[in-house]
Amino acid sequence: MLVTGAEGTIGTAVRENLADRYELHALTREPSGFPSIVADIADLDAIQPAFEGMDAVVHLAASAAVETPWDDILPNNLIGTYNVFEAARCAGVERVVFASSNHTIGWYEYESQPDVYRIDDPRVWDETVPVRPDSLYGVSKVYGEALGRHYVDRYGLRVFCLRIGTVTKDDDPRAASVTANSPALLNLPPDERLNRMRCTWLSQRDCCQLIQRCLDDEDLSWAVVYGISNNPRQFWSLKSARELLGYAPEDGA
Amino acid sequence: MLVTGAEGTIGTAVRENLADRYELHALTREPSGFPSIVADIADLDAIQPAFEGMDAVVHLAASAAVETPWDDILPNNLIGTYNVFEAARCAGVERVVFASSNHTIGWYEYESQPDVYRIDDPRVWDETVPVRPDSLYGVSKVYGEALGRHYVDRYGLRVFCLRIGTVTKDDDPRAASVTANSPALLNLPPDERLNRMRCTWLSQRDCCQLIQRCLDDEDLSWAVVYGISNNPRQFWSLKSARELLGYAPEDGA
Repeated sequence: MLVTGAEGTIGTAVRENLADRYELHALTREPSGFPSIVADIADLDAIQPAFEGMDAVVHLAASAAVETPWDDILPNNLIGTYNVFEAARCAGVERVVFASSNHTIGWYEYESQPDVYRIDDPRVWDETVPVRPDSLYGVSKVYGEALGRHYVDRYGLRVFCLRIGTVTKDDDPRAASVTANSPALLNLPPDERLNRMRCTWLSQRDCCQLIQRCLDDEDLSWAVVYGISNNPRQFWSLKSARELLGYAPEDGA
Repeated sequence: MLVTGAEGTIGTAVRENLADRYELHALTREPSGFPSIVADIADLDAIQPAFEGMDAVVHLAASAAVETPWDDILPNNLIGTYNVFEAARCAGVERVVFASSNHTIGWYEYESQPDVYRIDDPRVWDETVPVRPDSLYGVSKVYGEALGRHYVDRYGLRVFCLRIGTVTKDDDPRAASVTANSPALLNLPPDERLNRMRCTWLSQRDCCQLIQRCLDDEDLSWAVVYGISNNPRQFWSLKSARELLGYAPEDGA
């Protein structure tokens, strides 16, 4: 299994939590403190060798900040994601787990804040609602999902798109400032940011469980699911993650 | 009003049919036989002046062949469409009509052919079904729609996405060979191609009416609709085009 962006927050969690279950290979843009193939996903020829012989790819490499400007979105998220799917296809990789994002539909939240963060607010969005990206980052993830669907239909890959909530480096839902670059958070006072985090938090353990479910699944060729922990208030539906993949989060904010 | 790709099939129809209703300005990549600003949409700085003072943009410029390879999709459809929305925003343009495509959901058709072309086949897909692009071209149009939605929500543009059927240079639904590059058509015999065209044809007159409805609409900030003529068999729904925009096609294959 190949992990792109293995040096990032989720990549680090995957290396720490899933190394005993899978033979992990890492792709990173810069040399890191662990064995990895060093190449930029914006360069298809450079990354192709890393895909040879792999049965699965967990594609995490991207500019992950919500307010990433176009000049970085283009190589890291648009070109890079095409290159990853194309390299996977050329190498005969069976399965790609793609780190998508809740920001594909972020505008619903933005329109509804701060009430949407209240424990008794009834609103829940699932993966069937029309996309409303809150950022170019969100647009890039809509594109990545569409690309994934195309590779499923046309080339027989199996693709799992995870609309991931908020995973933090210190794995603590109280570290609410980490996503302050999100448009949904820019105008929120600190206590409201914490309320948001209580809704959107995904623990590293639950994130890795969700990725593992995708890697072990034997039935699906395509899925789009949200990824959050078992938080008291959830405004993204976990129904598909639970029913399609058997996801059973162990943590909660 | 600015028309990008004004030298293309639909651009030519727009110049011929709508010049008496709007003050048309043309953007083309190469010098053409009519007055136009010459610039490549892949170059934001080069196209920006063309957007100044415009109230609307009809964005037709793109690689339009379904099997367009990545090296052309990237500049012409991905970068170019971002540049058009961004130039429109920077210039304060109110409205963008975006030539999207039925190929955003083309795989439903591909899976269902040739029966789906029969007059008594009941299948109809509308704009609410999950996208299933049949090509990188289709992926680029999913991306363009998501980008449009983002510019509506975040910047207040009004965006109309037209999932256009088959518009031909000679405006004749019997010229079925023109879209033989579509994966849906590659393995079809000529008579089945003709059956497809009878379903997907959009006359130049109806195409221009649909664009005009978008330009004249005073209520909507966002719409995704299909564009075909009043063909006997229709497997893409015109319900939203009719109800939201008042589209009333005058032709039929």
